[in-house]
Amino acid sequence: MFETAELGHRIAKSVFDRAAPKLRSDLLDAQYRLKEDGTFPVIVLISGVRGAGKGETVNLLNEWMDPRHILTRAFDTPSDEERDRPPMWRYWRALPPRGRIGILFGSWYTAPIIDRVFRKTGRGDLLRSIEDINRFEKMLADEGALIVKFWFHLSRKAQRKRLKALKADPETRWRVTRRDRDFFREYDRFYRISGETLRATSTADAPWIVVEGADAPYRSLTVGRALLEAMNKRLDAPAGRGRPVSKAAPIVRPIDARDALTELDLSRTVTPKAYKAGLLDWQGRLGRLARDAKFPRISVTLAFEGMDAAGKGSTIRRVTGGLDARLYNVIPVAAPTDEERAQPYLWRFWRHLPRKGRVTIFDRTWYGRVLVERLEGFCSEADWMRAYSEINDFEEQLGRADVVVCKFWLQISREEQLRRFRERERMRFKRFKITPEDWRNRKKWSLYQSAAADMIARTSTQSAPWTLVEANDKKFARLKVLETVCRRIERAFDGA
Amino acid sequence: MFETAELGHRIAKSVFDRAAPKLRSDLLDAQYRLKEDGTFPVIVLISGVRGAGKGETVNLLNEWMDPRHILTRAFDTPSDEERDRPPMWRYWRALPPRGRIGILFGSWYTAPIIDRVFRKTGRGDLLRSIEDINRFEKMLADEGALIVKFWFHLSRKAQRKRLKALKADPETRWRVTRRDRDFFREYDRFYRISGETLRATSTADAPWIVVEGADAPYRSLTVGRALLEAMNKRLDAPAGRGRPVSKAAPIVRPIDARDALTELDLSRTVTPKAYKAGLLDWQGRLGRLARDAKFPRISVTLAFEGMDAAGKGSTIRRVTGGLDARLYNVIPVAAPTDEERAQPYLWRFWRHLPRKGRVTIFDRTWYGRVLVERLEGFCSEADWMRAYSEINDFEEQLGRADVVVCKFWLQISREEQLRRFRERERMRFKRFKITPEDWRNRKKWSLYQSAAADMIARTSTQSAPWTLVEANDKKFARLKVLETVCRRIERAFDGA
Repeated sequence: MFETAELGHRIAKSVFDRAAPKLRSDLLDAQYRLKEDGTFPVIVLISGVRGAGKGETVNLLNEWMDPRHILTRAFDTPSDEERDRPPMWRYWRALPPRGRIGILFGSWYTAPIIDRVFRKTGRGDLLRSIEDINRFEKMLADEGALIVKFWFHLSRKAQRKRLKALKADPETRWRVTRRDRDFFREYDRFYRISGETLRATSTADAPWIVVEGADAPYRSLTVGRALLEAMNKRLDAPAGRGRPVSKAAPIVRPIDARDALTELDLSRTVTPKAYKAGLLDWQGRLGRLARDAKFPRISVTLAFEGMDAAGKGSTIRRVTGGLDARLYNVIPVAAPTDEERAQPYLWRFWRHLPRKGRVTIFDRTWYGRVLVERLEGFCSEADWMRAYSEINDFEEQLGRADVVVCKFWLQISREEQLRRFRERERMRFKRFKITPEDWRNRKKWSLYQSAAADMIARTSTQSAPWTLVEANDKKFARLKVLETVCRRIERAFDGA
Repeated sequence: MFETAELGHRIAKSVFDRAAPKLRSDLLDAQYRLKEDGTFPVIVLISGVRGAGKGETVNLLNEWMDPRHILTRAFDTPSDEERDRPPMWRYWRALPPRGRIGILFGSWYTAPIIDRVFRKTGRGDLLRSIEDINRFEKMLADEGALIVKFWFHLSRKAQRKRLKALKADPETRWRVTRRDRDFFREYDRFYRISGETLRATSTADAPWIVVEGADAPYRSLTVGRALLEAMNKRLDAPAGRGRPVSKAAPIVRPIDARDALTELDLSRTVTPKAYKAGLLDWQGRLGRLARDAKFPRISVTLAFEGMDAAGKGSTIRRVTGGLDARLYNVIPVAAPTDEERAQPYLWRFWRHLPRKGRVTIFDRTWYGRVLVERLEGFCSEADWMRAYSEINDFEEQLGRADVVVCKFWLQISREEQLRRFRERERMRFKRFKITPEDWRNRKKWSLYQSAAADMIARTSTQSAPWTLVEANDKKFARLKVLETVCRRIERAFDGA
């Protein structure tokens, strides 16, 4: 991976001085075209060995381009708000919106490589990280992001020389730390492990560009030109070209029309007396679990889906009824805001993830992608087809970060929905207003049911299984949900 | 303040049970009307003595209403991201958007009262806090927020009894902590200091409602009804009624048309050689200041204003040129996003405030309120008139939190602007596009100049003075800005 970056590439200062003004002007133009175009973000990763000019290059890019439209983020020690969430959360919150350039100084590569170099993790961890990263970057690319990854390399000799030079100059001495020396001692491991990582993550969507870092004019021109070329190539492409096209086989319905939903016994019910006792029991149990000494070590995400009038709202209220209001947030998912539309699809859910010891309840969820967005044509087939695996990746990350993920599909019959719609129409309350859209959606009942069955089949995983809830009897549904939440938390405690 | 809340108010459980269903249904309706109306947020503060049922009441409100449209926020120990910013930052980020209810459990009252009770602050601090709070709440009210403040009170006897009861029950024993005992020991001080604070902050915009907390049915009905009444009163008011009307005298222009801007000597200039040397010097000095051991104790906010083509962008680039890109963010201020429009005006600036050791540069700023918004009629006269003092309050808070605030007005002559417009038109670069709007704004030159002069006169304070920059010579302007930034940081170091 690094062979061509140890050749001692150099260019004369005079060559640089001649080339720089034009490059700079072209970069500025590309940046403004990007802003005007507004359809995709540019994500620039700056990684590599210490002392190879990463910081200088980031500063130079900010100097060459218009810093007002660049978001530069350095990832040092995570804040406590970041430590309390899945590791990728801090990167999600730093993603640039469409039309802007984000320079990430340090990235999702830093921890996997360094932890492996210093033997904090095993080889299996690194391989898993590599796979995670490839899936994450593929998702970003599928969402339209242009990803430009730079790796700054120095040969062992060059690195030693550079560290010496930095130390000799009183202006730069502060930049050489004990950590630099620790790193230099592990040069070989670092070389091998980062090489392997780079090879395995150099994909068509996001190839690595390895830059020899010893000579400032050389590395600056190389980075500037590569970035310019990548941006122009994308900006010059006819709109829509390069958009992913689904290569998947169509989703085939079972010939006998049976699926997980049709098999549910919707006649299940509970007596008023049993409901009253059960509600008290389970809410009390949930409340005690939330006060358990182990609770601050986990967090809980509840996802509610179901047809209109399936009882999501009233069920959520029975769950929150067992919890202290300081512990939970309920997020009703409606149309995305414009800040959310400028980001990858899952961004709007990442931003609401709970801290440790907290609960986030989503009323409608990220599954909208494969339900309403699929059926109403709000996204392309390729978009919702890839959503299944993106969602699985997302939930797996949550699971690994000790987030208990409970997903509920509240199932009612078509007749029961009609009965509830009519009942709502008779009520005077604003809150039970039935809109024409509700009636329109109802006409697509069987399409929605098929899409839900697909979704359940494709996204019910070990760590984040779907719970199908027979909800014709609301009370039965509420108890089943409460019980599931309690048992999942208890299981998490056993594992914690 | 608390006399009527020690009368031993009680209502029978049966009265409560009869009244609750109707109240609950009415609250739900009001909540949905609020959501539909969408023009104002409801901010509910829950404060008071420990053991007076605050937590239970918050839970009850969430149970009675639809928790999906309530944001409940409890303010415990600040996170490190919060500690690194002015104290009010954590409350700004918790404000509910228009159309929603935010329940703040603990609030901007907590620290001033408690710090004074436990003698961490003096009487002067408390008085200043009270004044700050009144100005802050007035701003919220002027922005349309409905503020409902509940104070839960217990007589000394009742508090002792309640703590005992909580301790006796194994289900609730966990809730009584050492802190409760510390508080109880200071009952008298707490009584006196909170009483004084409440009296001084019970304003027409945001009066306090003191609730006797001993009897759950009584306090629950009291809070529920008061909240319902406040919401309905506001929702029933004819639109626009209750909107603040400016009572201020009109702004009078000096008869001789002289002001701070007309007095500037725009012929000031710098030689190319002096510029080159000065730029290097000041950028180097800025870079060294940012690496100083004292820098992580302060943060820096730079605000740039000026007519179109005054050179804000290119000046900002000379400032960032002296800084490590990891340390700064540049925020170009354009039209607000929809999430920003749903919040008080200053919210969009608060969210970008730098952490300690960081720099945020605003290209156009909160002063848009008294410049473009004033002149283009984007807000009412009352809105921009009150903005002067709101901005002064905002910047004073920054100053107190060790944020260095430098505000630059880049002044060019009308002829120079024309020259630059024409030059830009001749250029092929996208980034120098001149829009019809630029020409339109140019026609209002003297109006903008007057507004800027007003702004400077009304918002140049000791801690956040305006620096007027003669910018016909861009190079002169850049050096003056860089020098000012350096000197202001140095002065902050002396104070730190």
